[in-house]
Amino acid sequence: MCGVFGASNIPNAAQQVYMGLYALQHRGQESAGIITVDDDNVAHAHRSMGLVSDIFSTEILDSMPGSVGIGHTRYSTAGSSIISNAQPCAVDYHVGPLALAHNGNLTNAAELKRDLVSKGSIFQTSSDSEVLVHLIARSEARKPEDQILDALERVEGAYTLVLTIGKTLYGIVDSRGFRPLVLGKLNDGYVLASETCALDIVGATPVRELQPGEWIRIDGNEVQELPPLPPKPHRRCIFELIYFSRPDSKVFGKSVDRFRRSLGRRLAQEHPAPGADCVFSVPDSSNAMALGYSEHSGIKLEHGLIRNHYVGRTFISPGQSSRTEKARIKFNPVREVVDGKSVVVVDDSLVRGTTARSLVKMIRDAGAKEIHFRSSSPPITGPCYYGIDTPTYGELIASTHTVEQIHQHLGVDSLGYLSLEGLRGAVERDGTGYCDACFSGAYPTAVPGAEPDAPSIDIPIPATIR
Amino acid sequence: MCGVFGASNIPNAAQQVYMGLYALQHRGQESAGIITVDDDNVAHAHRSMGLVSDIFSTEILDSMPGSVGIGHTRYSTAGSSIISNAQPCAVDYHVGPLALAHNGNLTNAAELKRDLVSKGSIFQTSSDSEVLVHLIARSEARKPEDQILDALERVEGAYTLVLTIGKTLYGIVDSRGFRPLVLGKLNDGYVLASETCALDIVGATPVRELQPGEWIRIDGNEVQELPPLPPKPHRRCIFELIYFSRPDSKVFGKSVDRFRRSLGRRLAQEHPAPGADCVFSVPDSSNAMALGYSEHSGIKLEHGLIRNHYVGRTFISPGQSSRTEKARIKFNPVREVVDGKSVVVVDDSLVRGTTARSLVKMIRDAGAKEIHFRSSSPPITGPCYYGIDTPTYGELIASTHTVEQIHQHLGVDSLGYLSLEGLRGAVERDGTGYCDACFSGAYPTAVPGAEPDAPSIDIPIPATIR
Amino acid sequence: MCGVFGASNIPNAAQQVYMGLYALQHRGQESAGIITVDDDNVAHAHRSMGLVSDIFSTEILDSMPGSVGIGHTRYSTAGSSIISNAQPCAVDYHVGPLALAHNGNLTNAAELKRDLVSKGSIFQTSSDSEVLVHLIARSEARKPEDQILDALERVEGAYTLVLTIGKTLYGIVDSRGFRPLVLGKLNDGYVLASETCALDIVGATPVRELQPGEWIRIDGNEVQELPPLPPKPHRRCIFELIYFSRPDSKVFGKSVDRFRRSLGRRLAQEHPAPGADCVFSVPDSSNAMALGYSEHSGIKLEHGLIRNHYVGRTFISPGQSSRTEKARIKFNPVREVVDGKSVVVVDDSLVRGTTARSLVKMIRDAGAKEIHFRSSSPPITGPCYYGIDTPTYGELIASTHTVEQIHQHLGVDSLGYLSLEGLRGAVERDGTGYCDACFSGAYPTAVPGAEPDAPSIDIPIPATIR
Amino acid sequence: MCGVFGASNIPNAAQQVYMGLYALQHRGQESAGIITVDDDNVAHAHRSMGLVSDIFSTEILDSMPGSVGIGHTRYSTAGSSIISNAQPCAVDYHVGPLALAHNGNLTNAAELKRDLVSKGSIFQTSSDSEVLVHLIARSEARKPEDQILDALERVEGAYTLVLTIGKTLYGIVDSRGFRPLVLGKLNDGYVLASETCALDIVGATPVRELQPGEWIRIDGNEVQELPPLPPKPHRRCIFELIYFSRPDSKVFGKSVDRFRRSLGRRLAQEHPAPGADCVFSVPDSSNAMALGYSEHSGIKLEHGLIRNHYVGRTFISPGQSSRTEKARIKFNPVREVVDGKSVVVVDDSLVRGTTARSLVKMIRDAGAKEIHFRSSSPPITGPCYYGIDTPTYGELIASTHTVEQIHQHLGVDSLGYLSLEGLRGAVERDGTGYCDACFSGAYPTAVPGAEPDAPSIDIPIPATIR
Repeated sequence: MCGVFGASNIPNAAQQVYMGLYALQHRGQESAGIITVDDDNVAHAHRSMGLVSDIFSTEILDSMPGSVGIGHTRYSTAGSSIISNAQPCAVDYHVGPLALAHNGNLTNAAELKRDLVSKGSIFQTSSDSEVLVHLIARSEARKPEDQILDALERVEGAYTLVLTIGKTLYGIVDSRGFRPLVLGKLNDGYVLASETCALDIVGATPVRELQPGEWIRIDGNEVQELPPLPPKPHRRCIFELIYFSRPDSKVFGKSVDRFRRSLGRRLAQEHPAPGADCVFSVPDSSNAMALGYSEHSGIKLEHGLIRNHYVGRTFISPGQSSRTEKARIKFNPVREVVDGKSVVVVDDSLVRGTTARSLVKMIRDAGAKEIHFRSSSPPITGPCYYGIDTPTYGELIASTHTVEQIHQHLGVDSLGYLSLEGLRGAVERDGTGYCDACFSGAYPTAVPGAEPDAPSIDIPIPATIR
Repeated sequence: MCGVFGASNIPNAAQQVYMGLYALQHRGQESAGIITVDDDNVAHAHRSMGLVSDIFSTEILDSMPGSVGIGHTRYSTAGSSIISNAQPCAVDYHVGPLALAHNGNLTNAAELKRDLVSKGSIFQTSSDSEVLVHLIARSEARKPEDQILDALERVEGAYTLVLTIGKTLYGIVDSRGFRPLVLGKLNDGYVLASETCALDIVGATPVRELQPGEWIRIDGNEVQELPPLPPKPHRRCIFELIYFSRPDSKVFGKSVDRFRRSLGRRLAQEHPAPGADCVFSVPDSSNAMALGYSEHSGIKLEHGLIRNHYVGRTFISPGQSSRTEKARIKFNPVREVVDGKSVVVVDDSLVRGTTARSLVKMIRDAGAKEIHFRSSSPPITGPCYYGIDTPTYGELIASTHTVEQIHQHLGVDSLGYLSLEGLRGAVERDGTGYCDACFSGAYPTAVPGAEPDAPSIDIPIPATIR
Repeated sequence: MCGVFGASNIPNAAQQVYMGLYALQHRGQESAGIITVDDDNVAHAHRSMGLVSDIFSTEILDSMPGSVGIGHTRYSTAGSSIISNAQPCAVDYHVGPLALAHNGNLTNAAELKRDLVSKGSIFQTSSDSEVLVHLIARSEARKPEDQILDALERVEGAYTLVLTIGKTLYGIVDSRGFRPLVLGKLNDGYVLASETCALDIVGATPVRELQPGEWIRIDGNEVQELPPLPPKPHRRCIFELIYFSRPDSKVFGKSVDRFRRSLGRRLAQEHPAPGADCVFSVPDSSNAMALGYSEHSGIKLEHGLIRNHYVGRTFISPGQSSRTEKARIKFNPVREVVDGKSVVVVDDSLVRGTTARSLVKMIRDAGAKEIHFRSSSPPITGPCYYGIDTPTYGELIASTHTVEQIHQHLGVDSLGYLSLEGLRGAVERDGTGYCDACFSGAYPTAVPGAEPDAPSIDIPIPATIR
Repeated sequence: MCGVFGASNIPNAAQQVYMGLYALQHRGQESAGIITVDDDNVAHAHRSMGLVSDIFSTEILDSMPGSVGIGHTRYSTAGSSIISNAQPCAVDYHVGPLALAHNGNLTNAAELKRDLVSKGSIFQTSSDSEVLVHLIARSEARKPEDQILDALERVEGAYTLVLTIGKTLYGIVDSRGFRPLVLGKLNDGYVLASETCALDIVGATPVRELQPGEWIRIDGNEVQELPPLPPKPHRRCIFELIYFSRPDSKVFGKSVDRFRRSLGRRLAQEHPAPGADCVFSVPDSSNAMALGYSEHSGIKLEHGLIRNHYVGRTFISPGQSSRTEKARIKFNPVREVVDGKSVVVVDDSLVRGTTARSLVKMIRDAGAKEIHFRSSSPPITGPCYYGIDTPTYGELIASTHTVEQIHQHLGVDSLGYLSLEGLRGAVERDGTGYCDACFSGAYPTAVPGAEPDAPSIDIPIPATIR
């Protein structure tokens, strides 16, 4: 998963893009980057592995002039955590530099890449976003926007794009609208961001979310709507609302916090836990769901698990892997809350089941009498091909186990998943359509038949660069 | 403030000390260090500025053999953030290496230091803990324990110590007992830690807390109680319970979570907010208080502020100081929760008042109709001389303003502080005494009359060390 | 200027490439890189700014499996000192990874690049070597070797290439043969290197130098000669012998040390200094010339200048630029050698004249009575377009000043340059042809009319990469 | 071995100390440091492992105000390469900061340290220089200079000191005068340096060398001679002249270059090599000796070995230890010079004999017919206790082998060492006395009976400090 941000007609754009990326850090902690375009149409880039606050310094931001800029935060995907995949990508383009930040995943990237390579294109990264850049560069159309259109006609899957050609900023959302993008006004300019929390931090006022298929062009402080992409059924990603977005954001027209609260209430309705002493969340992603569960069930809310926020990227777990479970690094139960109690534990979802199992053991060891585990979303039975980093079928516990088996595996007294109907009910009068393929198997596109080709070049991050 | 950890008869002690320090990271994020003593009585040290997870690598831990070790995390104090102050300190002592980790603050350090320098002692740090080491080294007693006793007789103030002489581990708490220390059993050895959460992470079983004036000696897996220090009235630091300790810890015999919950309930009793639509905390330190407030008042709990945990130590705020308030980097209100509502905001305490003021503005901008601010502790009217890094009188808002003036300054519709009586009531049947001098002015020792001498040597951290 | 190295059928090729690059460090200190290809046809790359010994660690080399590898050291060229220009470059090619290391300079790179961009190629670097990669990738030939041939037919200028396609290693020298390449045998494999000193360090036996236009293919331990490139008059770079190569190397069939010695003797013959007390070199590049001068003239050899080898890349010269000359950082005269003496100072060449002028002043200040300056090569009147980093016309002192003016400018008692005839005489019975265009203006190719296009994207080196 | 530098009344003293240390880099490459004292008597320090040019940046130097400063470069001694040993040391002293840089070695440091520790002193380093600081701090005299005198009366061995108390700079040389120190005038101030080459680089004029036992005090621009230390027979270190000092320096009243030249001539006289084709040095330390040998013998001088100056501190030698000898990393023979020839190889001295043996093998492999090895100093039969890092008896080849055995071990055709008489003859009419104990066994002081106590605390350099 990724976060994107764009700015037009904002003095010292780099600084605002930095702030925006910082607010979107939860959408990707592997790498981040910013590209600005100055008044002479020269692009300035800085990209690196790591957190936004570690990557950028005042000196670096000051060395990136320009009132136009885009930024990107990238999520860690196993096996391809390399600096050359950091975005935004920029190329020296005949009408000025073209820079692009992509949120989503192209489902036909592998075959497009094979075709491009056979025609002499050279790939520097294993990222599917580079395919887009090559398609644009190779288009025989003469006007840049036509070239982009040529490229978009060939790609399938999920793409929310923030891109610049020279000093013109574009925002594009694919026709199904998997990933969000919101337009905001900031002083005499505009910003684009994956979520409203990034508008808040820079002090921008939300104008509106881009609709599926929408394409806008921002020159200075003028926003122009370009002809939309060919319409397709809307497929907003429901997992954005369940887990991915920040609770203080408004995504797909809904408050994430309010949506999660409603899931918690539905969960309490579908899977009550009569006689339980208290309910608590697995912090922080399911806080709102636990509150909703408490509200509907009347079971007392507690803070039964404390999360250590200092984990960072570099925590090592020396000689602990077998004895102390990995979850213990992140979570610790409050003994006085759970000891001798019948507790309801609310989580947002169950992916591999390993963390949940460890948590259950910890809570049990802290003295809980009964543990009733509740998932605020249905069993995840298939991977996501549209940008969420869920694992393959084999690793998804609900793809290989029945709910009863999971119940046994976790070692809980009861287990309840929100039903697919319950989840769909929570969004049904929305006026848009959602993708819930990871729960339902109803993939809105053809899906890649096999694993993408392994790259034949492995360029690791330099240990030191001076 | 600081966190300390010790281990005896634990194979690869460095790894367990590392885990313990990681769990005590909230007690100090400026620097950290570990010292182990191997079977040949050789000490191995690693200390650095930064977070525990950034400072230590597998290689470093592997290079620190020994079954005995101590560790320290140190809090950032303005003006003395230098590597040479990192603890534990270690000296080459005639009966083997002596290593020491200190939590607390000595109130007569400046005058002791002057005296020691006049007798030829050479100081390497501006830390008061070095005074202890010099006093021990200069004692004319012949046995190490008598030397330590000589030293302790001369110091005043707060000191909870974890120290080693050769492979013997000692735990000491001053006679007033300002700072906590808990003993735990881990397999065939023992550990000492500032809080029980550090026992939990290594899988140790709590044995008991050390009492004020207690001094224990651990050789291998044998614990021996040494004669206690001269008795003084107990003065457990009440701010440990209010703010400093982790909610999953048990400190001074009480669950931190339960204590805070009770403060929240008392706060609701003393300062109700009839007609308010919801109550929420300033996360995460006042979560338990908000829950208590909601519980007693019946006002609906919400998550009205979202905290960004990616701030880190290096976040820069380019060109934002004046416009966007600093608090916006860390917190963002959930518009849908507060818009048009009358809200109760519960915080643990008010120190300078700057963050609270910014939060109030942010919540107001997000549409709140009324804001009722509640502090779960009384006005802080004086600095702490015993190890908590509260600022000087001039910076403490309640030292220079009346509650009514603070009400105006924050721009709230109502302001309520828990009363000193309320706070005292929450601990009164405890069987121990508490220090609440920062609220009451009742300092249990003489306090330093003036600022300590400025050091005449400024040794900055090397920019790069290879 | 650059150094290249290749290895085939050498276990742990990375380690031998590393040693080879280390011996070629004098050919480029800006950046270096290694690419290996393992038995599964996967390429492993590591490239970074800095010296070979700083860039690579045992861990890095151990993480680069494969018995085939190439390496590159790159010289600092003003304005383009960026990590993305570090070589070798590697691309994911349809028959396996293609990796390429280039020594030399293409004279028609700018126009080829314009053409490629207009056809949709995307450039990642400002290096002319990338043009070659694009031309190969875009060739419509089906066999890789035909594609390389297609590409080579389009480029003009100097190129000595070491490249791999899958596990096949190629060595190619352009038809004029500007830059050297030597083949060596090492155990059951082969190595290719810019100079024989790199064969010596890995313990390889020199087989032979590649001739202009030669192209060889090495599969495992089999060397095959491919049809040579179209023949052109040989133009071996004479500056390789005068300055660039190491004196312990054999280049273009000649011992560099012996050649320089002969230049020294010719210089003494053309520009004697009767009555001088001693002769000494500007160490270390002109050591052999000074010895030759002493040998022919009978003037006593001394070590009159001592060179500080700790300069490194990072030396700063605080507040010294005006007062102490920059040359003083690198050189110091031996007062007892020069005081009161008439001295002959032998240098290899005079480029800008600034160092020579500073040296003259230092030697004068140390008490020299007379200074007779001798250059072992003719006046440099034009830039090199074939890979030597001589400056533009305006900065070359001999391009803008007469010898008499230079004599005045340096402040010497006499000045003597080796004549062009003298230089040519030193190579005339060689059986090959030389390029001496920087002295004679006789450029063997068309030269670029204008500066290459400035890049419109400036991607600086990340300050920190984790 | 170490280098020291001091400056008084020099604006921005840090910059000149930096330049001076850079010129003294050959005297110690392990660590370096600078301390300045500003107008308010506050000391500013920066010390780190590594080369001077890597340790200091413009920013660091700019952050060290003051017109008074001292600096130190420290040599790598096995086993104690730790940051805390970096000098200068500074302590907070009652009359202002005291900073000290020490060149030499105290022979009674271990017993003094034991005594100090028993009286309560705490040691932070394993360096003998810290003993001096403790002795000064513990003196019961009232005036700082008397305290220093008290301390010096107790120490034995070699010490050349540059120290500051407040803004007063002192230069002190022990009564035997083992290590050099020279006073220079720079504009309106003074500098002190180990060698004249450091005066040259800052543009200072040499005033005079300090004599054994001399102690001077510099306040601003006034130099005052303090009463000398009690006289003892002079014992200037002859190894300073043979190997340690830079050839462009004047040390103990002699030109190092001229002295080495004379050793080369004496060597040729004592050990001629009739019939040899050429003579060459092991560069760079024996360049002057080889020239002297050639001059006296009439044998033609060549450059037969080329030295690679890029070795640096971090060079790794992957998988090469057994096959390629370590010397190959640093040296390569010029095949055309040695092939088929009878050669004389001149070195300055033979310590362990390992490098010499490798060189002989390399020269033989390059085709030499006969190899005549010559050492410009006598066999080294004992370690140095006065500051030169020669190894212990067991590792010194001439301590455990006869000359005939060494001849066999090296595999040479003849071996000649300069005689002790020859060496003494080269300095005999000097008017001073020399220490040649490493050759003669005539140690001028009692020597430590055993190895110094191993430190019981091992504090490695932090991997990263932020």
